[in-house]
This record gives sequence, structure tokens and C-alpha cells, in this order.
Amino acid sequence: MTDTVSSLLAEIADIGRDPARGGYTRPVHSDAEHILREWFVGHATARGLDVERDRNGIIWAWAGGVGPDAVVTGSHLDSVPGGGAYDGPLGIASALVAFDQLVARGVGGRPRAIAVFPEEEGSRFGVACLGSRLLTGALDPDRARSLVDSEGTTLAEVASRNGLDPRHLGPDPETLGRIGTFLELHVEQGRGLVDLGEPVAVGSSILGHGRWRFSISGEGNHAGTTLMGDRRDPMVAAAQTIVLVKTVARSIPDARATVGRLVPVPGGTNVIASRVDLWLDLRHPEDALTRYLVDEIASRAAAVAAEEGCTVEVTEESYSPTVDFDARLQDQLCAVLPQAPRLSTGAGHDAGVLKQHVPTGMLFVRNPTGVSHAPSEQVEDADAEAGALALAACLEMLATA
Amino acid sequence: MTDTVSSLLAEIADIGRDPARGGYTRPVHSDAEHILREWFVGHATARGLDVERDRNGIIWAWAGGVGPDAVVTGSHLDSVPGGGAYDGPLGIASALVAFDQLVARGVGGRPRAIAVFPEEEGSRFGVACLGSRLLTGALDPDRARSLVDSEGTTLAEVASRNGLDPRHLGPDPETLGRIGTFLELHVEQGRGLVDLGEPVAVGSSILGHGRWRFSISGEGNHAGTTLMGDRRDPMVAAAQTIVLVKTVARSIPDARATVGRLVPVPGGTNVIASRVDLWLDLRHPEDALTRYLVDEIASRAAAVAAEEGCTVEVTEESYSPTVDFDARLQDQLCAVLPQAPRLSTGAGHDAGVLKQHVPTGMLFVRNPTGVSHAPSEQVEDADAEAGALALAACLEMLATA
Repeated sequence: MTDTVSSLLAEIADIGRDPARGGYTRPVHSDAEHILREWFVGHATARGLDVERDRNGIIWAWAGGVGPDAVVTGSHLDSVPGGGAYDGPLGIASALVAFDQLVARGVGGRPRAIAVFPEEEGSRFGVACLGSRLLTGALDPDRARSLVDSEGTTLAEVASRNGLDPRHLGPDPETLGRIGTFLELHVEQGRGLVDLGEPVAVGSSILGHGRWRFSISGEGNHAGTTLMGDRRDPMVAAAQTIVLVKTVARSIPDARATVGRLVPVPGGTNVIASRVDLWLDLRHPEDALTRYLVDEIASRAAAVAAEEGCTVEVTEESYSPTVDFDARLQDQLCAVLPQAPRLSTGAGHDAGVLKQHVPTGMLFVRNPTGVSHAPSEQVEDADAEAGALALAACLEMLATA
Repeated sequence: MTDTVSSLLAEIADIGRDPARGGYTRPVHSDAEHILREWFVGHATARGLDVERDRNGIIWAWAGGVGPDAVVTGSHLDSVPGGGAYDGPLGIASALVAFDQLVARGVGGRPRAIAVFPEEEGSRFGVACLGSRLLTGALDPDRARSLVDSEGTTLAEVASRNGLDPRHLGPDPETLGRIGTFLELHVEQGRGLVDLGEPVAVGSSILGHGRWRFSISGEGNHAGTTLMGDRRDPMVAAAQTIVLVKTVARSIPDARATVGRLVPVPGGTNVIASRVDLWLDLRHPEDALTRYLVDEIASRAAAVAAEEGCTVEVTEESYSPTVDFDARLQDQLCAVLPQAPRLSTGAGHDAGVLKQHVPTGMLFVRNPTGVSHAPSEQVEDADAEAGALALAACLEMLATA
């Protein structure tokens, strides 16, 4: 085999392109994602790997037997709407190339596998890391079965159509028990490696993150007849909140705070809104600081809203504390990759879910734009190959340790 | 007939209620607006009026022949999202009751008609006073046909589905030529009559007003992984724009500036937006100051956006200069209604469009809350009946002058 990461990704470069948003739209169990799965299964089979799909739709490609204490690497093939080419597929292509290198070097030792996790992005059913959450029992199977996509189709129906028995979705201790170590390679979703001048990093943690809904209420009225001094305009209070979110977040190093979604009610051009809902996405490596930031933003928002004659109600929609990857595994990886810095990430990953159950680590590959979840996400060919080499070196160390 | 304005409005009190926003959502050619049209046609037919719909979808109910030099009154039945019960329907119900009074008093003279104008609010296709603008040629029919609603359906398609030939939308000099005088009764959208202690006013002018779309572009990216300093976030630039809109508007007496509609793209909670569109609704009695305000807001928005690494594109979607109602007609109306003060309004009306072509006036009825385009818009029953009496008196004067 003489595949490179770049040549593998070139094979799927036309699959699932999104002409409207740019980039790729490859939701789980779409035609595009099915083509990518077939592409992976074809490559795995050609390499003599034993391919199976488990009861939660995770694809496993085994070398050297099926567990126990296997060294597993993998990632996902689904994307956000209008996402980039690398978020997910880079980890899969790199795994195939790394396995080739282990074969070429005659590496034996522990069994090893490549895993493809479905619905990592949560872009179809709204729950990120759906496959790994089902596998590990982090997601209740009854709740999972009743999740619906934007067409109103349940996960149970989609599973059935795709050859899975929805009754069997859920915790799978036997499959989980085969994993001795899990290592996920992923494109970096930021500019840490650009700033450090290195192609590959060892993951240290996943930032704690949460979502809070701010519901700002004022007084709906006519845009043309209501004098400026007579207004209680929640859009003005919302705008001041967004400005202070940035100010507060910038005051604490490593905080990331975003308002990407905002809905005015009723939302007419010639109507002063009666209410504005906005969602705060907030992340920080230290959970106490995340809490501090939310409280600070909420209290300052209440103050600016009060000046505008408005009120604010804050609701926590979700919160996940910071996940630190296995310390001993990090040290082992850094010993194999002495140049690689340790970097944390603000993004969620299946590795963050698996970490609760098995020793888990991550590798990140440099992204010149730092952009992710958007078409301009980028990886240089040389860095992609360096990533696969680093992955192979780490897998060899783990398999033969 | 013993209908009162209150009894007529009670008949439609349950049509098009909006459980989410409160009040009424009755966009043009929705089921709710169709029920209101049928309700009007039923009442007009029961009174022996000759009902016709013209090529632009305006409903005309004629008494005493079809023009020329007719005395026409009317308003609209469509609403903004979550609007009140009176904005539009009050003028239609009052016209029916006023016509009953003219019949009871045996008033003859000039032909008279009630007109129902479609899409006065512009809440479905984005252009206010769509029917009267098409009738008078103020809106290019090609542009009108290609207007789209939020579902992407064109006005041409909606017209076809509703029995209108979209090729025939546009200027209709024959129908326009039948109007000798136009008089629109409307709920006041402010507290002028409350402060003056009177139930009915004669309209003096409509403030110049317009709508501008601000399209703010930045860089879409991952909300969790993009450091605060690496962002070009159009939502932050949009927020700063909304804050400065208020500051700039407050610096000029009598200016009213509103952002009631804002759409982030892609609009995901965990995605920094790549673009934010917001709409500025701006009004001032002096057209030169409206222009000054738009230019000032646009240039300051470009500056704050540039600081955020974003760009702004400003598109004028509509602009109507200040309209002074016919001075001679105002004097005639005030002679009939000696107690009525003269009031200007900040709201647009079909009367403002027709004023460019025929002698046109307005009557306003007291609104205790002063609120409009919101559920708490209000008219006392006694004021509603006083408004219909005033309208009847004015129509009689005009018909027999």
C-alpha cells in the first residue's frame, strides 16, 4: 500500500460538498456519509482488517484479533453543515496510513483497531458524540431512540432503515471492554500549533463547556410611533449583553464566549421586539472560572437590561465539566513525540466520552487557518503525513509497551 | 343592520391568534387573513355593496356605482407577527358601520367604496403598503413578482395560487382614477390623543421612513476552539451597531430608529457566525435628517465592524419621504370634527401612498396604551363607536360637498 493521508482524503474530496454554505455537509446516515463509510470499509477490507459494525452503528476494523486490551484509534466521518474537509476524516485517513506503517515495520503486540463513531457532531439529532455516548451508557437509550432530526424522523426509525435494531441501541460493555487504550487524531480547531511552530500536539484536556439561554424581556411596540425615550427595547439590552460577553471573556485568559444564535420576538422589521432570546456558549479549562464567567455575565446583563427597562432570565441548557486526558498516557505520548507541545481543546470529542472508561488520549494536527466547522478549515499535506507518522509511532509504543 | 365596531371586531377576535407571541399573526394570504377577507366580503355583500377584487388583490366594495370621483375609505386586514387587534381591522369595521349610518340617514351623492389593501404591513414580503404601491405604480411590478417570503416562495407564486394573474400585477390607472377622495381611519399608534383627552384626531402627516438591511460579514468558526483574540465575529459588530443606532437616534429630536429583526448565519449555538443580517427601521419628519441619520449610522457601523475585522454592506430596501396630507381636506375634516386635534404619525399607511395621487386624509382613534404592533394595543369601545361616527360624518360631508 502506498496511500498517503492526502491521497486518501483526495478520494473523498467531492463527496457531500455543500454548494450553498461551501465546504461539506455530511450528516450521519446521509448519502454522503454512507459513501464515506463504504470508502472506509473498502480500504479496511483491502488491508485484511476484520470489519464489523456494533449494535450502536460504530464501525470497528480489527488487526491481530478482536481485543481484549486493544489499542484503538479512530474518529468520525459525519460533519456539521458547511463544515471543513478534515474534522473527522483526517483521523480516519491517518489511522489507515498509520496501520500501513505498523504492518510495514512488522509491529505485532496487542490487537489494534480503527473505530468510526457515528453522529460525533450531533448535527442531525442534536446530541454530540451520540455513538460513544450510547456505547458507554452516557446517553439513555430510550431518550436516544426518541431523538428526532429536522424532518421529524426518530433515531429509532433511522437506525432501522440502516440495518440496526433500535431495541439494541445502548450500553455495550463487551465491546467497550475490548478497548485497552483509545487515541484519537484530530485537526486542531485553533491556532495553538501555528503559534508554536509545530505540526503535532498531544492533547491535555477538553475545556469544560456549557450553553445558557438568556431571555431578555421588554415592551413590544411600533417602531415608527414610539419615541426613543419611551422604549423598553430588549434588542438594545441584548446588544449590550453581547458586547459585555466579549469584554468579560477577554478579561479571563483562555475563556471562550460566543453568542452565535439570537432570536428576536416577534422579529418584525417595523416592530420593537418584546423579547430577545440569545444563547451563550462558554468554555474554560477551569470549571470554577466557567461558573464565575456565567455569573459575572448574567449579573452585568441584568444591570444593563435594567437600565433599558428590561429583565433577563438565564437558563442553563447544558454543562460539561473539563475532561483531563489520562496523565500517564500523555507522558507516554510525549516521550514518543518529544517536540510535541501539550494543548487543550475547546471542542468536544468522542475521546472525551471514552476517557471516563478507558485510558484515552488525543493528537492534534496543525491547522494554518485555525478555522474549523467552516469551509476554510485547513491542513497542509506535509503536516497530515507528519500526523500519521506520529500516530503510528504512538500506536507502536502502545502495542508493544 | 345594528352592527357596532365592537360587535364586528368581536366576530374576528379568535382569528389568527398567536399563542407563542400573543396577539395576532395574520400575514397576507395566510389562512387567517383569508378568513378575515371572507368575513369582510360577507358583510359587504349583506349590505348590498358590489364587491370586486382588482388585479393587485385589493378588494373594493362599492355603493352607488363604481366611480368616478368616488369617496373611498378603507384600511387593511393583515397584521405584523404578534400584532394587536385594531391596526387595520378597526378601519375596516368602522367603514362598515359608517356606511350603515349613511344608509340610515339616506345620504346619496358621490359613489362611495370601502377598500381592503393587501400586505400593508410588509410582514410577509418585506415591502409595506404592497397593494397601494402596485396600484399607483410606486413599486415596479417585476421587482414585486420576484419578492420572496421566508419560505422562499415568490409573490408571483402566491398571487397565482390565490387566483391573481401575476403578469397583471402593477399600475392600474383605471381603478386609481375612480378615487376622488381617500380617507383612512386607523388606531393611533402613540399617546397623542391620550395626552390631549380626545377620542379622534385628524391626521396631518406621516413621518418619512425607510428600511435598510445591514449585512455584516466576519469569519465563521468553532465557538469552543477559537480564542477571543483570533475572532472576526459579526455578531459582536452587529451588537455594537445596535447600540450606536440608539445613541445616534437619541442625538436628533423626533428621530425613531429600531432594529427589530436580526438573523445570524448559520445561527448555531456553538458556531461563531460568518454573517449577521439586521434591519434598521428609521423615521424622521425631515427627510434630510433621515438621510443624515442613515449615513451617520452606516459610517459608524463600518468603523466598529472594521475594529472587529468585519465588513458592512448597507442596502436600502425602501424609503418613503414625509407625507403631508391634503391641506384643504384637513380643513374640511376639522370643520366637521371641531374638537379633533391634528396629529402626525410615525407609522406608514396606504393613505401615505395614495396621497401622491388623490386628495387623501386620515382619522386616528385614541389608544389608551399608546402601544401598537403588539398585543397590548387597545381601543375603548366608546372611542371605537365615536371613531365610526366621525368617519360617517366626514364621508357624508365629502359625498354631498
